[in-house]
Amino acid sequence: MAAGEMRYWGWGEDERAPSENAHLLEWLGERLGGIGPYVAPADLSDFSEPKVRLSGKRLRQLSAIVGKDGLSTGFADRLRHAAGKGYPDLVRMRAGGKVPMPDAVLYPDNAEQVAGLLRYCSAKEIAVVPFGGGTSVVGGIEPLRGSHEAVVTLDTGRLRSVSSVDGVARLARLGAGLRGPEVEYALARHGLTLGHFPQSFEYSTVGGWVATRSAGQASSGYGRIDDLVRGVQLVSPAGTLGLDARPASAAGPDLRELVLGSEGTFGVITEVEVELAARPEETRYEAFVFPSFETGAAAFRRLAQEGVQPDITRLSDEDETEFFLAAAGLEGARRSVLARYLKARGAPVESAALAVLGWEGPAGTTQGRRAQAVAAMKGFGAVSIGTGPGRAWARGRFEGPYLRDDLMGRGVMVETLETATTWSNAPVLYAAVREALGEQAPVVGCHISHVYPTGCCLYFTFLALQDQEDPVGQWEKVKRSACEAIVGAGGTITHHHGIGADHRRYLKHEDGRLGISMLRGARAKADPDGIMNPGKLL
Amino acid sequence: MAAGEMRYWGWGEDERAPSENAHLLEWLGERLGGIGPYVAPADLSDFSEPKVRLSGKRLRQLSAIVGKDGLSTGFADRLRHAAGKGYPDLVRMRAGGKVPMPDAVLYPDNAEQVAGLLRYCSAKEIAVVPFGGGTSVVGGIEPLRGSHEAVVTLDTGRLRSVSSVDGVARLARLGAGLRGPEVEYALARHGLTLGHFPQSFEYSTVGGWVATRSAGQASSGYGRIDDLVRGVQLVSPAGTLGLDARPASAAGPDLRELVLGSEGTFGVITEVEVELAARPEETRYEAFVFPSFETGAAAFRRLAQEGVQPDITRLSDEDETEFFLAAAGLEGARRSVLARYLKARGAPVESAALAVLGWEGPAGTTQGRRAQAVAAMKGFGAVSIGTGPGRAWARGRFEGPYLRDDLMGRGVMVETLETATTWSNAPVLYAAVREALGEQAPVVGCHISHVYPTGCCLYFTFLALQDQEDPVGQWEKVKRSACEAIVGAGGTITHHHGIGADHRRYLKHEDGRLGISMLRGARAKADPDGIMNPGKLL
Repeated sequence: MAAGEMRYWGWGEDERAPSENAHLLEWLGERLGGIGPYVAPADLSDFSEPKVRLSGKRLRQLSAIVGKDGLSTGFADRLRHAAGKGYPDLVRMRAGGKVPMPDAVLYPDNAEQVAGLLRYCSAKEIAVVPFGGGTSVVGGIEPLRGSHEAVVTLDTGRLRSVSSVDGVARLARLGAGLRGPEVEYALARHGLTLGHFPQSFEYSTVGGWVATRSAGQASSGYGRIDDLVRGVQLVSPAGTLGLDARPASAAGPDLRELVLGSEGTFGVITEVEVELAARPEETRYEAFVFPSFETGAAAFRRLAQEGVQPDITRLSDEDETEFFLAAAGLEGARRSVLARYLKARGAPVESAALAVLGWEGPAGTTQGRRAQAVAAMKGFGAVSIGTGPGRAWARGRFEGPYLRDDLMGRGVMVETLETATTWSNAPVLYAAVREALGEQAPVVGCHISHVYPTGCCLYFTFLALQDQEDPVGQWEKVKRSACEAIVGAGGTITHHHGIGADHRRYLKHEDGRLGISMLRGARAKADPDGIMNPGKLL
Repeated sequence: MAAGEMRYWGWGEDERAPSENAHLLEWLGERLGGIGPYVAPADLSDFSEPKVRLSGKRLRQLSAIVGKDGLSTGFADRLRHAAGKGYPDLVRMRAGGKVPMPDAVLYPDNAEQVAGLLRYCSAKEIAVVPFGGGTSVVGGIEPLRGSHEAVVTLDTGRLRSVSSVDGVARLARLGAGLRGPEVEYALARHGLTLGHFPQSFEYSTVGGWVATRSAGQASSGYGRIDDLVRGVQLVSPAGTLGLDARPASAAGPDLRELVLGSEGTFGVITEVEVELAARPEETRYEAFVFPSFETGAAAFRRLAQEGVQPDITRLSDEDETEFFLAAAGLEGARRSVLARYLKARGAPVESAALAVLGWEGPAGTTQGRRAQAVAAMKGFGAVSIGTGPGRAWARGRFEGPYLRDDLMGRGVMVETLETATTWSNAPVLYAAVREALGEQAPVVGCHISHVYPTGCCLYFTFLALQDQEDPVGQWEKVKRSACEAIVGAGGTITHHHGIGADHRRYLKHEDGRLGISMLRGARAKADPDGIMNPGKLL
């Protein structure tokens, strides 16, 4: 079943939401000090509809570019484009009332219409927010108007063509508006895969992945989207940048790397040419337990530096492992069995770190790659607990955000953030962020989600009872504290969520004054009137 | 033995030059229609010394920044920094007479001195040409003054510190002026290697590699310099850009990728943090023969797409193979033996394509990797001719430029150029460039030097008798014809030599009007007065 439109107040669709997890609720209730009953989010009628700040003439002129059915000022359309899926977004959308919305939503059919829209909006000083799947968790698609009179959201949902699949060079040209399942469906009949599976896979788009430098769950194997993009078309107010696919080049600075991560502030990505891999004929997802997060991390470093890392490499710290055991309903007798099994093999469950490793590939290859990985992990006390828990992880791999909706409905603040650093600095960064979060959230877990030869991504989840008076203020406080810990301890402010509005103030710690000035210099040539996604990134 | 200063009129040093190859000279003489006796290059006294366009006051002020021994206006220093090692450079340097030279050469000791120099030169409108090893073959270090009164060359030769080696994250901070052998020497005692071996390895520098997006002979295995750079420090007239090493990030556009390939036009690279690999404990270089370049290319594509490519992957076309057989003195009886051997194994020597594959790695690993590669090449008619020719290639891997000097002394035009494209487009590009070169050069050879999942690098060598009246004009004509063929057939204008002055006019075919404008916008923030390496890249 193809995914439809997401719920405006939360993730995904009602009919796809998994049922609540009673084990986890009970366990969390104990840790957080009582969880309330589920409260339904605001109804459509609970929102007030903001005035459309575009004159009838402007609307007619915009319509003339995209056609009548390419422009909407309808309330439902504006609401659906009002916010991403970050925690503060969902707090506001669950509450209803006054929510900022774009003045209109535009649905161009092709790159020429995008170019026409941007020229028009540039001339009339209308801010433009590019919108792919609407899954940003960092305020990347907030309808901010900046210094402009009005703001429109440009939805890439109609840019859905697959204009070429080259089986020899293993390249495909994909429309920016294609969602994950559509991409994989189109490539499957060529025996190919993009191998890009972010948790947002079912709803996020090719253009969004590139604009935010997305990483997927299997990116330790297939590569991040940065590694997979070979060509790109960016339509900006000043013109179009068309970069053809080339395997490698020494022809000056790499402009693809300016478009990657540009988050709609340089223009609209309309088409992307990506590198593909052979579609796997077999997969194996297997869980392991390490005696500690520290030893597991050392083993993961070994995997990456020997070049034998699985396609999926995930290692939970002791606290996140505890969370998963609770969610799996592992307590009492069942837990004792597991504890005895692990203890017999040298991994005491009292301080266990759960790992999920996944291999995908041609028939007959995963067994050999698994053997290489197991050999590299020798001496770190890894104990396999089989493919059952690995398959369970794979089944639920896109469902995390539904759990968040359920918990938010019960008055729980639940949020995630990620960073990356070198292997040598990872313990320092881990301790700093954990401490910052722990001061304000009773439940904090972390996992290594991606490994590289020089370092890894640390992905944190934290939960606390919601401050009912000021839930967004509560979030801002803990978020600021965590971000300051990250930049203070030498981590990148984001490994794959992006900058958006939320991380904008921290970019200077990485790029410096000159770096930001250089990016602004480049952007000014593409968007001289500053209409593109104001208030984000730079 | 550590390498010293290169000969101003050619490659390397007299005492390192290999002896002439009589077999090859005879073979070439037949093809080109007679090769002349060797004529020695111009002596130092054959050059006229251009006036220094800097006043005594300016020179004193520059000296005050770098110290007395950090500035030279001596003739030998100016001459040594007058040109790179491209064919037209060497034609001019062999001829003597009037040659443009920098007005002074500066040797800063550290990044602070570089910053002081650039601020001073910016204020006084003095053009600055950054200079690493001086090995550019595309006019990257020509002392052009642009619209400025004077031009100085900034030699990074004193920025030679290894300020850290992190064995855990496998990262090292390297001074920009370190040459290849110095880098490997410093890393060897940590059991590590950078794995970067361009043909210029003995003389080129870390900073130069990064500034030109260099690729080395083993980059199919270890990765290009673009892949290995994790952090970088760029000192520009407007300030310093310091990017810390991070394994991956989604924090906006990647500024490292603006510095990579910037060719000194944004500022001076003073330090680079690079990703390292374990130093190989064993190596195996082996030669194979394919029945044709086409089948060999198909096998190489398979190697890259199955992820089992050797670290060194080189495949010569039939003409280059003929050239190598001649250079190896394979004719008459010896050649018949080889022909019979190959014929018996299905690879007729009359249309053979020679491949060199190389594996490097921990003890006990190359055999297994070789088996994987041989399995992937099954069905393409590859016949091993053993490790002897492979080792011979490895012994002579840095000697090609000496042969060029010898041939130039005998009145032969000898030049190389490279491009890259997708596997699907490679046959079209190959035919187009070969035809363009063949119209003006009787001997043309090509090899695939690097493979990627989506495509490869095509590296051409061409030879003709020199036009004694106008050797540079002759070169310009064939070079233009080849470059137009490259851009017309969809190749990148350079895979690893860079843009410099020679390829500047072709960059628009890849980056387009908007892309070049964006790069200029970024550069204007780093170098508002346009003093950095004028006339190169953009």
